[in-house]
Amino acid sequence: MKNSTIPNWLKQRVYLTPDRLALTFQNQKWTFKQLWDNVQQYAGKIQTLSIVKGEQIGVLVKNDPSSVMIIHALQQVGVTTVLLNNRLSVSELSFQIDDANIQHLIFHDSFREKVTSIEQECSVLKTHSISELHSLAFSEITVEDTFTLDDVCSIMYTSGTTGNPKGVQQTYGNHWWSAIGSALNMGLSDYDRWLCAVPLFHISGYSILMRSVIYGIGVSLHEHFDEKQINQELQAGSTTIISVVSSMLQRLLVDLDEGHYHPRFRCMLLGGGPAPKPLLEKCKSRNIPVVQTYGMTETSSQIVTLSPEHSLTKLGSAGKPLFPCEVMIQTSAHSSQSGNREGEILVKGPNVTIGYLNRDEANEKSFSNGWFHTGDIGYLDDEGFLYVLDRRSDLIISGGENIYPAELEGVLLSHPRIREVAVVGVPSTKWGEVPCAFIVEDEDCNDIELSEFCKQRLASYKVPKVFVRIDELPRNASQKVLRRKLKELAGKEFQSI
Amino acid sequence: MKNSTIPNWLKQRVYLTPDRLALTFQNQKWTFKQLWDNVQQYAGKIQTLSIVKGEQIGVLVKNDPSSVMIIHALQQVGVTTVLLNNRLSVSELSFQIDDANIQHLIFHDSFREKVTSIEQECSVLKTHSISELHSLAFSEITVEDTFTLDDVCSIMYTSGTTGNPKGVQQTYGNHWWSAIGSALNMGLSDYDRWLCAVPLFHISGYSILMRSVIYGIGVSLHEHFDEKQINQELQAGSTTIISVVSSMLQRLLVDLDEGHYHPRFRCMLLGGGPAPKPLLEKCKSRNIPVVQTYGMTETSSQIVTLSPEHSLTKLGSAGKPLFPCEVMIQTSAHSSQSGNREGEILVKGPNVTIGYLNRDEANEKSFSNGWFHTGDIGYLDDEGFLYVLDRRSDLIISGGENIYPAELEGVLLSHPRIREVAVVGVPSTKWGEVPCAFIVEDEDCNDIELSEFCKQRLASYKVPKVFVRIDELPRNASQKVLRRKLKELAGKEFQSI
Repeated sequence: MKNSTIPNWLKQRVYLTPDRLALTFQNQKWTFKQLWDNVQQYAGKIQTLSIVKGEQIGVLVKNDPSSVMIIHALQQVGVTTVLLNNRLSVSELSFQIDDANIQHLIFHDSFREKVTSIEQECSVLKTHSISELHSLAFSEITVEDTFTLDDVCSIMYTSGTTGNPKGVQQTYGNHWWSAIGSALNMGLSDYDRWLCAVPLFHISGYSILMRSVIYGIGVSLHEHFDEKQINQELQAGSTTIISVVSSMLQRLLVDLDEGHYHPRFRCMLLGGGPAPKPLLEKCKSRNIPVVQTYGMTETSSQIVTLSPEHSLTKLGSAGKPLFPCEVMIQTSAHSSQSGNREGEILVKGPNVTIGYLNRDEANEKSFSNGWFHTGDIGYLDDEGFLYVLDRRSDLIISGGENIYPAELEGVLLSHPRIREVAVVGVPSTKWGEVPCAFIVEDEDCNDIELSEFCKQRLASYKVPKVFVRIDELPRNASQKVLRRKLKELAGKEFQSI
Repeated sequence: MKNSTIPNWLKQRVYLTPDRLALTFQNQKWTFKQLWDNVQQYAGKIQTLSIVKGEQIGVLVKNDPSSVMIIHALQQVGVTTVLLNNRLSVSELSFQIDDANIQHLIFHDSFREKVTSIEQECSVLKTHSISELHSLAFSEITVEDTFTLDDVCSIMYTSGTTGNPKGVQQTYGNHWWSAIGSALNMGLSDYDRWLCAVPLFHISGYSILMRSVIYGIGVSLHEHFDEKQINQELQAGSTTIISVVSSMLQRLLVDLDEGHYHPRFRCMLLGGGPAPKPLLEKCKSRNIPVVQTYGMTETSSQIVTLSPEHSLTKLGSAGKPLFPCEVMIQTSAHSSQSGNREGEILVKGPNVTIGYLNRDEANEKSFSNGWFHTGDIGYLDDEGFLYVLDRRSDLIISGGENIYPAELEGVLLSHPRIREVAVVGVPSTKWGEVPCAFIVEDEDCNDIELSEFCKQRLASYKVPKVFVRIDELPRNASQKVLRRKLKELAGKEFQSI
């Protein structure tokens, strides 16, 4: 009972430290007080849209200040925000809008064209561009003093190995504990500033906004990942922490060349999939403070992190759980919290999602006794450090975006001249991995045609970069496609792309 | 539901960072792993005492490593620890032991004499000295993986303006959130170390032990407050934070003279009652990072704290609530969260006690709608900074210990030759305040006799330092003693003591 609410975090932050820096973007700056004034404006306007408390509102935004303000405003209005990935195709977005029963969509004006197409597919949807919001009359809003920890704050979609994407429900409590767990691990200082060049619609970006408010530190928001600009900032010392995926880190290192980061820069938080060892070793030799983490949308960002003191001795490990969290390996035989046995990674903690939206079956499969089954494979060494071996066996991680082969395979199988298909990741210097499709054709179809077919149905980063024709897919005795075989095959056929 | 447990914090800490420094005392050091080994030993021995989970165990300890280990061991065994103030008299201690229904008392060997007297008053009590514990056989203990946030972890007694002392129940959740709230305000760093020269049986000391484990930082434990030794440590830079009351700060300043603290020393956490302004100004001019706080046993340590950036501009204020907390002023007319109106200070937050042990009436009076009535008087300025004017109107704070006049008056009134009595605090350079008793005699009785009479019944710090004979006590129309009048009178009669 005691812990069921916490103070409305933005309101509390503004009360406690109104004049601290909250947000920078290009040459603009906002203190928490200034951010609050803007957020209240947006909230007052959004409220006039005849929105019902607790309903799901879709947002299709990008990394810019108005998006930050709208994300906060929706918390103040008391609705659940469904964060739509702006790189998805119209049909992918329409699916999510429909699945989450979204009646209202707020979008950045730059996505007007996409939204026009979405409107044709979702007839009941009411859409509102940010500039349209501006022109609305403002109605005074009474914000709540507290947030209820169990209320759903945000929903983000992820795909699994099979089936449609699922909406991950993140509560206010999930975000709160995620921020607390991270602070207990990484420490916290008045002069911290967190650089956000990862998408706000992903948990990696969204969680930076929440930490900013809960910690009272600034966010340096970047619209795109520009390694030159970011390196300048990290060298100047205004930014102390940045969240990156390994392809970003790679680009930073190339650009940095022989340069050095400012001593105040204290954390290169590296997530979004396993990092290549040579990259980590290079960082180690350059004294770059890489903090490896393992997390996912379902854990509201990090859940396992390598403490600074182990970054050198446990290279390649994702580390140990955050303080409020637990991790366990489940093999078919038994469960354990150490012992070098490979198995599925199970996690537990107050930052773990309460479940997928309207997916009873998936929820039943994914949760048991408070443990969440990640589907990822790994082991814990004798000291309890986690090593992640495979992320959901067939998951492809490309530039920090998750690509689920099943989704691509579903699209390609719907092509009239394709009989069988299997998609695997192949190494890419720039993106980590890119998808490669092995296809068994009924009739000839060329790459351009297939590519175009996919582009109409999928976000462009998901479109296979390579199509390989094959007579039949390698399968095991129970007819399961041997993806590892295909990976080997792909490895032999291609140089790194 | 999600938040009802957290990992067993000492076990989790040992798993996460076994080799970090946990405790120093004189020339000895313990890492978390070493502390854990000792704690397990104690827990395994305590377990053999036929203790029932959840029962209240009394501890009469002092600031030394074995006491730290026993405090942790009792959490591992799963009982509630009643922390007895080792400066109390036998009858005061016996009252608490009886009130909390304590069956087992663990005591430091140095208190054997006191315990022998207690045994005579509490016939069913089983007592165990620490050296006796050592000689017990060790039985392997299965520690729980989690702590339940709502379970009562510790009980500490406080007195009110009337009636007997009351046991304040502090849950695991109270201690957890107290540590989190403090970290969000003060920041947190790998190299932090917290100096504890305040008693472990007070919330000021006990909370340092909890923060150490939750944050993964070391405690530098001191048996006594020795300003020379402590100044040396703060100048050397090994310690970054210290908890003090104003009389301690005063002594540190005198000893420091023209010296300077190490730049790493970042927080002089000043609690235990209002601080004299000249003292704060002196610290300001000497660039000593004083962080003023307001808290009490019932709030499991700090609840209102002055953020570092306001320490200069809001001198004399206790600051603003910790992030998870709220504060409100209640006047007879209405409640408010700003506006300069004087009234009772009400606080709310997950660190606030769930209530007094077996005191339905007091609990009903003290809590309303989740708000705790502190009994203290203060106001909030226009920006929401709290100013504490009076602590429970007649409370005397002497060297960080609370002295309740009602308690002393009760003792003195039981003297056959005293008709009326009123106790007030008079200023003391060394202790902040000391108690002064105004008495109306039936027959003559001398100071030595009165002093001796009190010493037999009260902790020595509570014994009035001065007795003033008076013909009658000043009273208002409704016959309430005018304590303010007595304070004025005392101020005129004495120089500062």
